[in-house]
Amino acid sequence: MKKHRKSSKKQLSKKIGMPPGSLIYVGDMDADVSKMPKPTVTLVAYDAAELTETQLSDDDLAAFDLSAFTRAGKKVWLNIHGVHDAAVIAKIGTLFELHPLVQEDILNTEQRPKIDEFNDYVFLETRSFKYDKANLTMDSEQVSFVLGHDYLLTFQERSTGIFEPVRTRMRATKAHIRELGLDYLAYALLDSAVDRYFSVLEEMVDTSEDLEERLLSNPTNTELHMIHHLKHVSMELRRAVWPLREVINNLTRNESKFFKPATLPYLRDVNDHTVSFIESLESIRDSLSGMMDIYMASVSQRVNLEVRALTVVTMLFMPATLISGIFGMNFVHMPWLEEKDGFWWAMSLMGTIAIIMVIIFRRRQWLSSKK
Amino acid sequence: MKKHRKSSKKQLSKKIGMPPGSLIYVGDMDADVSKMPKPTVTLVAYDAAELTETQLSDDDLAAFDLSAFTRAGKKVWLNIHGVHDAAVIAKIGTLFELHPLVQEDILNTEQRPKIDEFNDYVFLETRSFKYDKANLTMDSEQVSFVLGHDYLLTFQERSTGIFEPVRTRMRATKAHIRELGLDYLAYALLDSAVDRYFSVLEEMVDTSEDLEERLLSNPTNTELHMIHHLKHVSMELRRAVWPLREVINNLTRNESKFFKPATLPYLRDVNDHTVSFIESLESIRDSLSGMMDIYMASVSQRVNLEVRALTVVTMLFMPATLISGIFGMNFVHMPWLEEKDGFWWAMSLMGTIAIIMVIIFRRRQWLSSKK
Amino acid sequence: MKKHRKSSKKQLSKKIGMPPGSLIYVGDMDADVSKMPKPTVTLVAYDAAELTETQLSDDDLAAFDLSAFTRAGKKVWLNIHGVHDAAVIAKIGTLFELHPLVQEDILNTEQRPKIDEFNDYVFLETRSFKYDKANLTMDSEQVSFVLGHDYLLTFQERSTGIFEPVRTRMRATKAHIRELGLDYLAYALLDSAVDRYFSVLEEMVDTSEDLEERLLSNPTNTELHMIHHLKHVSMELRRAVWPLREVINNLTRNESKFFKPATLPYLRDVNDHTVSFIESLESIRDSLSGMMDIYMASVSQRVNLEVRALTVVTMLFMPATLISGIFGMNFVHMPWLEEKDGFWWAMSLMGTIAIIMVIIFRRRQWLSSKK
Amino acid sequence: MKKHRKSSKKQLSKKIGMPPGSLIYVGDMDADVSKMPKPTVTLVAYDAAELTETQLSDDDLAAFDLSAFTRAGKKVWLNIHGVHDAAVIAKIGTLFELHPLVQEDILNTEQRPKIDEFNDYVFLETRSFKYDKANLTMDSEQVSFVLGHDYLLTFQERSTGIFEPVRTRMRATKAHIRELGLDYLAYALLDSAVDRYFSVLEEMVDTSEDLEERLLSNPTNTELHMIHHLKHVSMELRRAVWPLREVINNLTRNESKFFKPATLPYLRDVNDHTVSFIESLESIRDSLSGMMDIYMASVSQRVNLEVRALTVVTMLFMPATLISGIFGMNFVHMPWLEEKDGFWWAMSLMGTIAIIMVIIFRRRQWLSSKK
Amino acid sequence: MKKHRKSSKKQLSKKIGMPPGSLIYVGDMDADVSKMPKPTVTLVAYDAAELTETQLSDDDLAAFDLSAFTRAGKKVWLNIHGVHDAAVIAKIGTLFELHPLVQEDILNTEQRPKIDEFNDYVFLETRSFKYDKANLTMDSEQVSFVLGHDYLLTFQERSTGIFEPVRTRMRATKAHIRELGLDYLAYALLDSAVDRYFSVLEEMVDTSEDLEERLLSNPTNTELHMIHHLKHVSMELRRAVWPLREVINNLTRNESKFFKPATLPYLRDVNDHTVSFIESLESIRDSLSGMMDIYMASVSQRVNLEVRALTVVTMLFMPATLISGIFGMNFVHMPWLEEKDGFWWAMSLMGTIAIIMVIIFRRRQWLSSKK
Repeated sequence: MKKHRKSSKKQLSKKIGMPPGSLIYVGDMDADVSKMPKPTVTLVAYDAAELTETQLSDDDLAAFDLSAFTRAGKKVWLNIHGVHDAAVIAKIGTLFELHPLVQEDILNTEQRPKIDEFNDYVFLETRSFKYDKANLTMDSEQVSFVLGHDYLLTFQERSTGIFEPVRTRMRATKAHIRELGLDYLAYALLDSAVDRYFSVLEEMVDTSEDLEERLLSNPTNTELHMIHHLKHVSMELRRAVWPLREVINNLTRNESKFFKPATLPYLRDVNDHTVSFIESLESIRDSLSGMMDIYMASVSQRVNLEVRALTVVTMLFMPATLISGIFGMNFVHMPWLEEKDGFWWAMSLMGTIAIIMVIIFRRRQWLSSKK
Repeated sequence: MKKHRKSSKKQLSKKIGMPPGSLIYVGDMDADVSKMPKPTVTLVAYDAAELTETQLSDDDLAAFDLSAFTRAGKKVWLNIHGVHDAAVIAKIGTLFELHPLVQEDILNTEQRPKIDEFNDYVFLETRSFKYDKANLTMDSEQVSFVLGHDYLLTFQERSTGIFEPVRTRMRATKAHIRELGLDYLAYALLDSAVDRYFSVLEEMVDTSEDLEERLLSNPTNTELHMIHHLKHVSMELRRAVWPLREVINNLTRNESKFFKPATLPYLRDVNDHTVSFIESLESIRDSLSGMMDIYMASVSQRVNLEVRALTVVTMLFMPATLISGIFGMNFVHMPWLEEKDGFWWAMSLMGTIAIIMVIIFRRRQWLSSKK
Repeated sequence: MKKHRKSSKKQLSKKIGMPPGSLIYVGDMDADVSKMPKPTVTLVAYDAAELTETQLSDDDLAAFDLSAFTRAGKKVWLNIHGVHDAAVIAKIGTLFELHPLVQEDILNTEQRPKIDEFNDYVFLETRSFKYDKANLTMDSEQVSFVLGHDYLLTFQERSTGIFEPVRTRMRATKAHIRELGLDYLAYALLDSAVDRYFSVLEEMVDTSEDLEERLLSNPTNTELHMIHHLKHVSMELRRAVWPLREVINNLTRNESKFFKPATLPYLRDVNDHTVSFIESLESIRDSLSGMMDIYMASVSQRVNLEVRALTVVTMLFMPATLISGIFGMNFVHMPWLEEKDGFWWAMSLMGTIAIIMVIIFRRRQWLSSKK
Repeated sequence: MKKHRKSSKKQLSKKIGMPPGSLIYVGDMDADVSKMPKPTVTLVAYDAAELTETQLSDDDLAAFDLSAFTRAGKKVWLNIHGVHDAAVIAKIGTLFELHPLVQEDILNTEQRPKIDEFNDYVFLETRSFKYDKANLTMDSEQVSFVLGHDYLLTFQERSTGIFEPVRTRMRATKAHIRELGLDYLAYALLDSAVDRYFSVLEEMVDTSEDLEERLLSNPTNTELHMIHHLKHVSMELRRAVWPLREVINNLTRNESKFFKPATLPYLRDVNDHTVSFIESLESIRDSLSGMMDIYMASVSQRVNLEVRALTVVTMLFMPATLISGIFGMNFVHMPWLEEKDGFWWAMSLMGTIAIIMVIIFRRRQWLSSKK
Repeated sequence: MKKHRKSSKKQLSKKIGMPPGSLIYVGDMDADVSKMPKPTVTLVAYDAAELTETQLSDDDLAAFDLSAFTRAGKKVWLNIHGVHDAAVIAKIGTLFELHPLVQEDILNTEQRPKIDEFNDYVFLETRSFKYDKANLTMDSEQVSFVLGHDYLLTFQERSTGIFEPVRTRMRATKAHIRELGLDYLAYALLDSAVDRYFSVLEEMVDTSEDLEERLLSNPTNTELHMIHHLKHVSMELRRAVWPLREVINNLTRNESKFFKPATLPYLRDVNDHTVSFIESLESIRDSLSGMMDIYMASVSQRVNLEVRALTVVTMLFMPATLISGIFGMNFVHMPWLEEKDGFWWAMSLMGTIAIIMVIIFRRRQWLSSKK
């Protein structure tokens, strides 16, 4: 959590005063860009009949000719891992004639999800999340889509596996997905990214349920900080998904010429999922607020029990102490003092009073440790 | 409550990476799909003159011919119980040419209420609730409607009895409802489902009133958790009814070609009910917040009383203890010590001080257990 | 309050499963419908020249002929008290050709304020309130209006006197109101109902000011519950007036053909009143929240004072007790013990320390009961 | 504050049951209308060349002829002080043909700011405020404008001096304001009224800053009530300025034919001021909420310190008391008792323990009065 | 913080009663206008080929002829520092024919960000911030833009360095920025100002993270006031950026004729930044609320620990004190008293009980200072 926010901070000052469209990688600052693995560019060219997957070298990329594929009726999907290498992004940017601001946005991995429609392509940004349940932290990865008429580009820093299920479906012979257009592929990848959100949500619900149980038994400072952290995480998710919802909502209104009407029902489906996700998130936030209240009530309750313990102790000892004081007075004429069993009588008196008190306290349920 | 949320969670991860339109039952995970009762398909064919109810076997379903009924001027209502059987749903889907996503939505029993209008039919999803007052939990069931020009399909996992009153009305001779179209039947069933919400609401109000009374007398941790649970339940209801309101609101604006203008006043009536329901829910939520405040105030108040009890005890014993200490000093020359009744004088002094204090405390109303 | 909500609850379950338009009285359940007074139907027929008021018997109602009045240029206002009698409502419904749902809404006295425009009449529902200051409860009554081209119908369960001022104005010779149309009459009655809201508001402000003063002097649990109750009442008022505002706002936009343009400025005036009412209500709610905060602060403050009292007592007695303990030690060689005035010296020491402490405490203002 | 609200209350019930347009003064109830000073009507007739100010008597008013001025190319501004005199308002109402509801609104001095456009004039209502810093109360005065094609009417109960700066500017020779139209004059007066709001705001900020400083040093109940009062005042201001913003916003959209396009930039300027005012108000409200939190935290903190004081006292005396008790035991064989310096040894022991404790407490910073 | 608000206050009352368009400097009141440095006017005239920067004297300004530059194909940017000198602003206002209200707005340095489009130019106001981390205060500076067809004017009181990066880029030979229009320059300067916001944000995040850590270890009053101050600062930022967002949003909708379509993607980029900034600010505010909760919980927790300490001390000493009291009683017949080791037996008894208690307390984790 903290790490994420820190990097998000560093990255921003780095850009101040730069001309717009400056290609500078903005991401995790602890990592040394020069030591990061070389970016990999994977070409998936397919039609209904066959599919080829090729890892493109720098030379391949330089010699890349989209029109060759288009003429052959092939659909082209280029997936780029490692967006820290501004040179590669610039090369691809030139190849597909991407606006400088689009290139900048791909490199700046702390962008807000958004959609920008240009004449020749639509640019779409979203985020992928990974929740670390043990540390209550969350890693997020930016995923950028560029959908043109004959190609689809996807950009990520690290492989997060969110595209894997789609790739598997594509490799199958007679895969329905290969018969459909690139807009359907873009949808399928987006859908896969949104599905991933739900697994993050599940883990948050798990943590939140654990938390709820622990709050009921014995709330400590740890629970307080867990609540605080979960709130933070849910807030961050919300900030990423809320604009995404707008983006997808825009798409479902068929305002983009890059998505065919036949794909719209599917986009509406993703839209339903994001709305449902946001509602679940709200529900978690609400639940966390409730837990905060329970925590505060528990702390107050405990002050109560501590004071009661003090009261009980004081009440149990005070009468006995007074009796011992009374028989310690130095009056010449005092009852019981010269009696043979006087001492034991006094002790019995103390004991009796204590026992009566214990009985009274038990009746008032003052001795049970629970309220 | 907890069970519900858990199942809602499991269900989601099951779908990750699946192609859209995959027919997989998504519902209560604790149940073994293979051991669930076989789905039943009930055909109700009717016109103003007569009504026939038939339980369709698998073979009947395979041989089902809608046009036969249409030609005979019969309206057809198919009610399916047991949506866990993907095969049956697929069969019906093929029969009525339902979009793969619609079939998927019917199987996925954790959908958000929504309306999707297609060329040949309108698809509508809503939820039915059952509130378990004893455990403060709530079971929910998804109810799907498909309204075509000549048929109405309804899908549920279990029979919840919400359609029973409508069925009874239909069976009556000369039933007005049989003279009207299928859109009116769809309205009647929807209305029946919404009516059920109000009985849930009533039980929540009951619980909430009990809670309020208990809070006034002796609030404990149990009440705190009841408040928390009720909030949760009301939130869940809200999440189901809010989108339903939009759905029905859409219908009332006569945007759907499947509902006749004559049915619109009835839909507006359902709309009024859902709005009224949401307002009552908000009122319960507000009331629960107020109870939370009262609970917190009560806990603080009780700390107050405990401290006061401690103060009173301390004040009652301290003077007596001091007096006994004074007469326990070993001075050679001390008053009262050699007097015959000195001891009793000292005891009287202690007693008198204690009595005066009790009088003062009573005047200040410090001895009453209530504030 | 409680009673009201209970009845509101009962009423709802009674309707479940009923066909829409079923004429069943839904209102206060504690009352036995058969024992309720017979409904009275009052006919007011008037033009600029004269006004006649007649109580219609069942037979009169059966023989009622609206066109006779219309031909004579008379405007007709029928006021019905006692909407529990479904038969009478049905009779009038038939006479004026009211939609079954309108008849149902008139009988169901727990409706949300609304406006429904039909071809031949506009149907309007609102509520009238009566605030019982002593018990902090509120009774509400449903008032339904049906405004046709030549008639105005008004329905209430009990006479609440809200129409009385208008009636008085109508009876006056040369009453301006008699020269104007039925839409103006409807406005006048509605205005009278809204005016009544302000008298409820005044009483709430009174209660709330009393409450505020009591909170400043000596807040107890009673004040807490009063705050809770007032919040409840204000919430209920809000739920009734908010939809009414929409209704009237609709009318002011001249969307209804039943209200003449000349009446619009008057409707705008009522609209201003409802907006102003809602704002005052918000202001009361805000004020109640502030009181809750003050209450909580007071309770915390009091814990504070109790603890201080305990501290002061402990501090006053502890040194004296220690001194008495010291001179009670059994050392052979101890100062003062054998002195003639040793005892008094010791007593003086105790007294001196106590006096010094009291002086210190007074300076720190620890002995004042107020903070 | 309280006084204001009370009068606002009284005034409302006075009107219940009245026909609309009834001319009854609704304002401060404590004042006796018959004893209030006679209303004064001031006529300001001007053109670019000259300006005449005349106090109109009742007879002057009766003989007033607007067309005479219009023919002479003079612009006419009538300012009326003392709106409690319904007769004068009625006379002016007749003279300028004002709608009965407008006349009623001028008399009812507790109206919400609003704008009503009629065929021959536009009617505008706003409020002027005066903040009494010492008592934290606020007086408000209603200011009504009627802007016709050739005249401007302004109505107030008391002279509040808000028009004075404008009057001074008008009296100057070659005053730019005299060359411009009546709409500009209306704007100038409105602007002057809005400027006054800012001086109220300044005083509130002053009070709020004082409050903040006092909260930091030594918060008491007084501060709590000051917070409560300031909230109240800010709420009341908000209720007056919020609708005013809408009114002015309407005007800036050039929807009124009574304001010339050249005046629009000036109206936009006033609009900016009201928006800025509302934001400052929100900022004060936010700040007050923060203070409430600080107050609550301070009270809790103080409980803390009180308990600590108690703990420290108890810990300092308990060991000494135990030691004195031990040497007061009556064992035959006890150490130190017969030693010559035994008593002093015991006393030293007590002192040493106390000193060690003080050192420990000081290290833990338990003896500082601040946390 | 405080200083800022105070000056904002003073400035406002200074203007009351002034005619609109009065040229009076409204800014920091502590500074003496006559002692402030003379305003400097810097002329930057450029085309793609070359760029000249000249400091204009008063005479230069008087002789300034825009058309000379326009004819030469030069773009003109005038940057004015020191807006306190009304004479200079008036001179420039006359030169470029600025509306009196625009001139007034430039001088009034406490304006809300806004955009006003006139026939010949567009006027835009924004704020620049400087956060003083040590004192948690924030200085703000108003930056005004006037963009005409052939010129750009910028106004600030003090140089804040926000234009420096842009200037540096312009001075480079073959600078791309010099080839583009003045609208792009205006965008670049605005972008630079918005970038500065992010550095303020970073410092706030830093402070907030420090705060969070300190809250976890040992929260004191200082942290409480830091939270309060940060909230204040974030609120002020929000008030400045929220209207700016609207301004930029307006520009991106291509409603201004002064911005070319080619510049729109860049404006959309700034728009994205402001939206992202606002969201980060919301996130900080949310986080601060969470900290407030943690603080309150910590204070309650500490009361808890203090009471426990008191309870433990009392429980440890009370039995021993009672035992010493018992053996101090003066009974003739008492056990142990005459035994040789009786005293030590008693002491052991006291010690044993104390040790047993310590063991019990340790098991219950009552002796750990943390919960």
